[in-house]
Amino acid sequence: MAGLHVRSVLVTGANRGIGLGFVQHFLRMPNPPQWIFAGCRDPKGQRAQELQNLASKHPNIIIIPLEVSDPASIKAAAAKVGERLGGSGLNLLINNAGIAKPCSLDNETPENMIQVYTTNTVGPMLMGQAFLPLLKKAAQGSPGSGLSCSKAAIINMSSYAGSIEDMYVWEFGQVVSYRCSKAALNMLSKCQSLAYKEHGILCITFHPGWVQTDMGGGGGSYKPPLTVDDSVQGMLKVLSSISEKETGTFLDWEGKVVPW
Amino acid sequence: MAGLHVRSVLVTGANRGIGLGFVQHFLRMPNPPQWIFAGCRDPKGQRAQELQNLASKHPNIIIIPLEVSDPASIKAAAAKVGERLGGSGLNLLINNAGIAKPCSLDNETPENMIQVYTTNTVGPMLMGQAFLPLLKKAAQGSPGSGLSCSKAAIINMSSYAGSIEDMYVWEFGQVVSYRCSKAALNMLSKCQSLAYKEHGILCITFHPGWVQTDMGGGGGSYKPPLTVDDSVQGMLKVLSSISEKETGTFLDWEGKVVPW
Repeated sequence: MAGLHVRSVLVTGANRGIGLGFVQHFLRMPNPPQWIFAGCRDPKGQRAQELQNLASKHPNIIIIPLEVSDPASIKAAAAKVGERLGGSGLNLLINNAGIAKPCSLDNETPENMIQVYTTNTVGPMLMGQAFLPLLKKAAQGSPGSGLSCSKAAIINMSSYAGSIEDMYVWEFGQVVSYRCSKAALNMLSKCQSLAYKEHGILCITFHPGWVQTDMGGGGGSYKPPLTVDDSVQGMLKVLSSISEKETGTFLDWEGKVVPW
Repeated sequence: MAGLHVRSVLVTGANRGIGLGFVQHFLRMPNPPQWIFAGCRDPKGQRAQELQNLASKHPNIIIIPLEVSDPASIKAAAAKVGERLGGSGLNLLINNAGIAKPCSLDNETPENMIQVYTTNTVGPMLMGQAFLPLLKKAAQGSPGSGLSCSKAAIINMSSYAGSIEDMYVWEFGQVVSYRCSKAALNMLSKCQSLAYKEHGILCITFHPGWVQTDMGGGGGSYKPPLTVDDSVQGMLKVLSSISEKETGTFLDWEGKVVPW
C-alpha cells in the first residue's frame, strides 16, 4: 500500500461486509488516515456493534449516521464531516452502501426497482454532489497536477452483475432491479469522472469480487469464492496504483478491466 | 421491408416523433398490420391531434390510453389490447415512450432521477411483464423455431447517450438522469432477451439516431442530422432482418452494433 496515503476517507455502509473491511484495512496501514469517517444507517443498532467496538479503540474512526437514500441525511453527514475536518478536504469517498432484492424478472416490482435505484444509484450521485466541495478542497491542497486516490477520488462500489456485456451469474440470480441499478451506477461513475476531472478528482467503479458477505450469500449454503480481506486488500492495492489514465473505468479487485 | 410481416404491433408514445413515425410507416407497408395499437398518454389532448386524424382515416389504428409510468394504466392497456386481439397474440411491442430532463450533474435532483427512471426503465419492464402472455401467444402461433420480429419481439428505444463506453455528445448535454436510465434500459433489455428467449421472443435495444423531434432538439437552433422518416425506415429495415443471433444486442438505426 506504499502508494496510498490519505488523510481522510469516508466509507458508506461501513458497519458490515466490505465497508467494515475497508475500515479495518485503513486502520492497519503503516500510516493510517487521520480521519476514517464510517457512514452507517443505524449507528446504535445491533448490526453496528462491531463497528462501535472498533471505534471505541480507535479515535480516528468517526461514526457518521448516514442513510444514502435520504437526501437530508446526506446533507447532514456532509456538514458533520466538513466540521470535523476543519479547513481541510476529504481525500477519498467510498460509495459502498448498497442493497439487493432477490427477484426474477417475472416477479420484479416497480417498488423494488425504485428502492434499489434510489440507494444504489441516486445515493452515490447525491454523495458526490454533497461532498464535492470537500473533495475539491483535498485536490487543491495536494501537490502535483495528475489524479490519484491519495489526492481526491470517488470510488463507487458496483458489481460484475452490472456488466451488460457479460451478465455475470445470471443463472444464480436474475436480480433485474440490482443489475439495472449497477449498470446505471457505472454510467453515473463515467459521468462523475468526466465532470469532476477538472476539479482534480479521480472516479472509478469497482467489482469487489463475489465476496463472503451477507449480500454475497455468505450465510447461505453456497460459499462465495472470496473473503472480505482478500477483496479489500486487492482493491486497496488497485487504489494505490491508479491515476488519471484509469479515471472513468470499471475495474475488479485485481485491477482487471470489467466490460460495461 | 420484405422480411417484416406483423399482424399486430403496439407502439408506446405513438402520438409524436419517432412513435408517430412508426405508425405512419406501418400504414405504408405493402401488407400493413391488422392492428396498430398506438399508446398515448392523453389521446384527447392537443398533442395527439395528428394521431387522431390518422386514426380517423385508418381503422386498423387503435389508440390506447397509456401512461407507462403508471402500473395501473399499463394493466388496463394490456386488457384492452388483449380484448381487441381476441384469441391471437401481439407480434411486436415497441417501447418507444420516454422522457428527458435537461440537467447538468451539478443540478441533477433525486426527483429527476426517479421520474426519468420510472418512465424510461421501469415502464418498459412493466410493459414486458404485462404483454408477455400476448407475446408468448404470438410466438406460439407462428411457424418455425427461430426468433424474429415478425413472430414476437420487444424493441426498446434507447439512445447512444446510454452507451457508457462512448458517452455520446457529453459536451452537448450531461443529462445524467437520462443517461443512467438508458444504460439501465440496456441492461433490462439484455435481461429480457435472456428470460424471454425460451418463450420465442426476440429483444433488442435501439439507438434511433439523433433525430429531428421535440426531444432531439428539432425545435431549437441546432438541427439534428436525421429525419424521423430516415430513422424509422432504417430501424424497420433492421427489424426485418434480425434473428436469434441479434437478440440481446444494442443496434443503431443502420443495424450497426453500439458499444455498451
